[in-house]
Amino acid sequence: MRLGMRFFSDNAAPAHPKVLEAIAAANRLDTAYDGDEWSSRLDGSFSELFGTEVRAFWVTTGTAANCLALAALCPPYRAILCHKDAHIEVDEAGAPGFFTGGAKLILLDGEGAKITTAALAEACDAIRPDVHQVQPAAVSITNATEYGLVYRAGEVSEIGKFAKERSLAFHMDGARLANALVSTGESLADMSWRAGVDALSFGFVKNGGLNAEALILFRTDLADEIAVRRKRAGHLLSKGRYLAAQLLAMLDGDLWLENARSANAAAQSLATAAPNRLLYPVEANEVFLKVTPEDAERLRQLGFDFYDWGPGEIRFVTSWDQQGEALDRLASAIAAL
Amino acid sequence: MRLGMRFFSDNAAPAHPKVLEAIAAANRLDTAYDGDEWSSRLDGSFSELFGTEVRAFWVTTGTAANCLALAALCPPYRAILCHKDAHIEVDEAGAPGFFTGGAKLILLDGEGAKITTAALAEACDAIRPDVHQVQPAAVSITNATEYGLVYRAGEVSEIGKFAKERSLAFHMDGARLANALVSTGESLADMSWRAGVDALSFGFVKNGGLNAEALILFRTDLADEIAVRRKRAGHLLSKGRYLAAQLLAMLDGDLWLENARSANAAAQSLATAAPNRLLYPVEANEVFLKVTPEDAERLRQLGFDFYDWGPGEIRFVTSWDQQGEALDRLASAIAAL
Amino acid sequence: MRLGMRFFSDNAAPAHPKVLEAIAAANRLDTAYDGDEWSSRLDGSFSELFGTEVRAFWVTTGTAANCLALAALCPPYRAILCHKDAHIEVDEAGAPGFFTGGAKLILLDGEGAKITTAALAEACDAIRPDVHQVQPAAVSITNATEYGLVYRAGEVSEIGKFAKERSLAFHMDGARLANALVSTGESLADMSWRAGVDALSFGFVKNGGLNAEALILFRTDLADEIAVRRKRAGHLLSKGRYLAAQLLAMLDGDLWLENARSANAAAQSLATAAPNRLLYPVEANEVFLKVTPEDAERLRQLGFDFYDWGPGEIRFVTSWDQQGEALDRLASAIAAL
Amino acid sequence: MRLGMRFFSDNAAPAHPKVLEAIAAANRLDTAYDGDEWSSRLDGSFSELFGTEVRAFWVTTGTAANCLALAALCPPYRAILCHKDAHIEVDEAGAPGFFTGGAKLILLDGEGAKITTAALAEACDAIRPDVHQVQPAAVSITNATEYGLVYRAGEVSEIGKFAKERSLAFHMDGARLANALVSTGESLADMSWRAGVDALSFGFVKNGGLNAEALILFRTDLADEIAVRRKRAGHLLSKGRYLAAQLLAMLDGDLWLENARSANAAAQSLATAAPNRLLYPVEANEVFLKVTPEDAERLRQLGFDFYDWGPGEIRFVTSWDQQGEALDRLASAIAAL
Repeated sequence: MRLGMRFFSDNAAPAHPKVLEAIAAANRLDTAYDGDEWSSRLDGSFSELFGTEVRAFWVTTGTAANCLALAALCPPYRAILCHKDAHIEVDEAGAPGFFTGGAKLILLDGEGAKITTAALAEACDAIRPDVHQVQPAAVSITNATEYGLVYRAGEVSEIGKFAKERSLAFHMDGARLANALVSTGESLADMSWRAGVDALSFGFVKNGGLNAEALILFRTDLADEIAVRRKRAGHLLSKGRYLAAQLLAMLDGDLWLENARSANAAAQSLATAAPNRLLYPVEANEVFLKVTPEDAERLRQLGFDFYDWGPGEIRFVTSWDQQGEALDRLASAIAAL
Repeated sequence: MRLGMRFFSDNAAPAHPKVLEAIAAANRLDTAYDGDEWSSRLDGSFSELFGTEVRAFWVTTGTAANCLALAALCPPYRAILCHKDAHIEVDEAGAPGFFTGGAKLILLDGEGAKITTAALAEACDAIRPDVHQVQPAAVSITNATEYGLVYRAGEVSEIGKFAKERSLAFHMDGARLANALVSTGESLADMSWRAGVDALSFGFVKNGGLNAEALILFRTDLADEIAVRRKRAGHLLSKGRYLAAQLLAMLDGDLWLENARSANAAAQSLATAAPNRLLYPVEANEVFLKVTPEDAERLRQLGFDFYDWGPGEIRFVTSWDQQGEALDRLASAIAAL
Repeated sequence: MRLGMRFFSDNAAPAHPKVLEAIAAANRLDTAYDGDEWSSRLDGSFSELFGTEVRAFWVTTGTAANCLALAALCPPYRAILCHKDAHIEVDEAGAPGFFTGGAKLILLDGEGAKITTAALAEACDAIRPDVHQVQPAAVSITNATEYGLVYRAGEVSEIGKFAKERSLAFHMDGARLANALVSTGESLADMSWRAGVDALSFGFVKNGGLNAEALILFRTDLADEIAVRRKRAGHLLSKGRYLAAQLLAMLDGDLWLENARSANAAAQSLATAAPNRLLYPVEANEVFLKVTPEDAERLRQLGFDFYDWGPGEIRFVTSWDQQGEALDRLASAIAAL
Repeated sequence: MRLGMRFFSDNAAPAHPKVLEAIAAANRLDTAYDGDEWSSRLDGSFSELFGTEVRAFWVTTGTAANCLALAALCPPYRAILCHKDAHIEVDEAGAPGFFTGGAKLILLDGEGAKITTAALAEACDAIRPDVHQVQPAAVSITNATEYGLVYRAGEVSEIGKFAKERSLAFHMDGARLANALVSTGESLADMSWRAGVDALSFGFVKNGGLNAEALILFRTDLADEIAVRRKRAGHLLSKGRYLAAQLLAMLDGDLWLENARSANAAAQSLATAAPNRLLYPVEANEVFLKVTPEDAERLRQLGFDFYDWGPGEIRFVTSWDQQGEALDRLASAIAAL
């Protein structure tokens, strides 16, 4: 199989050349940990980007970003409300339990991995407010979702309002937030802090980064705790400048938006090739198709790689670098099924 | 201050150009996590290097390597014997407590951060073998130590023998193992698995790496657990090939030994400049000096950066890239105090 | 309300007079913790009772018994399969997460809080065997269940066989095991170790005890770990003899079976009063009825206390001491609704 | 050996008859957990006793009281300052690590297990205020200490003042607080909340109780968290009234003070028998003697039981019920050595 024909996840894509250049440019002696000049610029750069004061921390994985945030937002003896297909439940090896010291995930249903305030209310109302049942402390949503759907800013804001009413903290797993934003055309501010989000896992690795994600705190009072928790979890790299430099390169000239646009456009190419096969509307850079085993086999024989999602379901994820021939060939092959 | 005049830690040094080249060479689409071709070569390459079958895991920090290993070697309700100045006790924000779920560190004295079997025996014998006192499960040593001293293979082997007799697991924090090895001229095998070490944190970042360390398991039966714990701690990077490629570049042509020789030689230059001021023999790449406050101030005025270790004590750490003018000037300045 | 008219839980009933007598008889100076003569007899007495060698530990709550066992049977990074209405999930404040260090509960459906091997298989088969998803390590069932249903020995044995095939440990929450046993007429051995149970929380407090439960280990190799975990969790009482004496008093002359028979008979009295209102067959000492709000109100006006289980559902739990007038009046009142 | 001749610990003594009577009097149906009439009276009774509003929780062990309090006072990523011989460090199987989720104990020296503000200040000042070193969050002292010494109210107050200045929470392990109080003649208020104590483990089991200790919160804002943590740790007994009744019986007519006076008087009898052999002044109910192996052997041959503390050191602990013949014979035997 040729590598350009891999569509199983955006987390395997190469890093953008500008990211590599930024790493090379940072390759000189500086201060260790996050005292270097690149790391020192993060708070300012992200505050400017969001239009409000934030604290920004580099980490190397979305799991670390998600779970450091959740540990600060939820004590060990309480719970986090999330979708039953949320990445934190399904694909992080129980990391929330580890980082929080045993907090529970309360799992909600919802189409396309989206949760609604109705589902949240139902779950909360079913919990007796006593010491025997675990009380919720936080809500976590993923945008774009694990099925490639997008919460619009208004939807996020409704959840934020609900969270506030119930005294719940609000976390967003934004591993593919860039894809959600370019899809909706809404602003980063409206999608996050103006909608009541307290902490955001802001993904860059799936979007052309090499190994730097950002944990953004709108509740800046949590920064000291997060700084300690990051170190304690082994996530304070000694040469942090190589992470900070990646993030700054991604922000520079809105590379992060440009990359997301490319990935989303690629997904649309695939979606339009087989509109009747779509399991979910394609709103970001993931395409789920209904296929027969023979269909799937045929695409594999043509050299394409993708994920078997469930019986008769396959998933394609497009990346920032997937334009051109391989994409066209895949679209044609899907159309021809 | 000019950056070349920083001597406060080897963990701030730049990455070796070959490491950057390796990262660039890995910058193409491949499988996520550790399924890529570079990661797949690690077990074989390190097994060859050690002359025995090992399992090798990339992680981004020494803290992660140390604490993942300790969590697998020590249950939450037991203890790890280590020096009171060990990095895991002093400089990791309590990470062993986090990763193990609350295991205890039992702290030993010992010259230059080295522990002896006598100290280990004394500590173990003082513990009543009942449920009220925490029973030890593991020993952890650092080589080279936090004071730049070196355990020779024979010393490690004695501790290994003690550990075996007492049914204790044996971990080595080898953040500067390369420096210890080139100092003693002993073999990697003699210094590790032949001496009874079960798990080794094999440091590369302080030795010219960018952000990849290796956790080496001689007890290969622990590999499945470590793999899960690494993911659960947020340390399974999605683009792991950039870490694996760094490690392979360091092993290639024994770059790791060459870099350590450079750093050690630089430390010897400083040591010979002021033999009477040395707090400890200089056996690796750290130099601790007794100075007056005025001495320290004078060195700073000349542009040198270093660590205030304690009253009247300063520390210089040399790196793989520190040869030439800045080093000579520092040696002269020290000699002139 | 007269106290004899409380039917909301067997865990509020008084202790049997023989239990109090045993406590009084143990009220003399002896050795602390579990070195006393009463505690020393537990292993022998319970081994005889079960017809196999067991290790028996007193604890003061079912939560402690359940969670100490689960912590020994499931590492922090794996999961326990149980019913979604299991006490460990619903009524223990997240204690399994605390004791295990963050292990996950995987929740199964099943009529009357019973789980089947089919449900277990479906849940296990849905988990990808990789490091991203939490792998199961144990199964826990409750007998009698939270809805007063009973697993027969053959059903337990099927689950035990499944557990063995999948390398899962097997725990039974037997808070009301006595009620299950007298209901089925089956033997303690068939219901536990012969059916593959590794650890049993053997309830006595709901059955006439004061504050002593027993944790029974059929896997006696876990005893040392459990002993340490019990101490570490603050559950090693210094005057343990008062707990051991209670357990011995309950075993003496099969008081535990006699008490369970009384409670079950009381439940049958209620069940026969309104056979058409039963939500579940009454197999132990719990009676769930469908009622209108007016019905419930009427029973309360008559002085009876019970639990509102859900909309239109109420729960009565009968205790060892509930015979006679209050019971008859409740049965009549139910019949008259 | 006759049981009356056991002097190895006050935690093995019988319960006072009034405690047993109170248990028997509580033996009727009531509400489960802590909703019963006895439990409901605890807050009021202890508030009256302390002369300020407190929240009072029954638990069954000092370990539970200590560690529930510490978990609420110290986050997982910080540390508790205590004496190196403190019970929480030496005799609780690492329970603080378990309850807090991995917080660290920072161990201080000090004569007779007492710590001073000077020692506290030295320990705090040695910690770099960065993310690499674990920052202290709380101080814990034991009164009377593990060596039977007593902090006077003024000393406690000094530590309380230090704690406040450094923003540290302040916990007192009062397993033998009654003995300390009757020794000093000072008031409970002066010894606790007026001296800045935030949470107190108030011991009753060593002082004639059966299995009920009290956790007293002067920071009443922590009560909700403690209530949840107690349940989650398996320490919310379903028939809590038997614990509450014990505590109320101990307070009734100041039985707790009377018992402590008896125990202290017994210790004084022993102390005056061999003033030159005392390792520490006898200020509460513990007597540490310097003896030869032959001395110890001789006392054992006479039928006395005690603890070998260290080489040439033995410990006697006296209890509320030790007056009369056995005590006199022991005093004589000691005098005759």
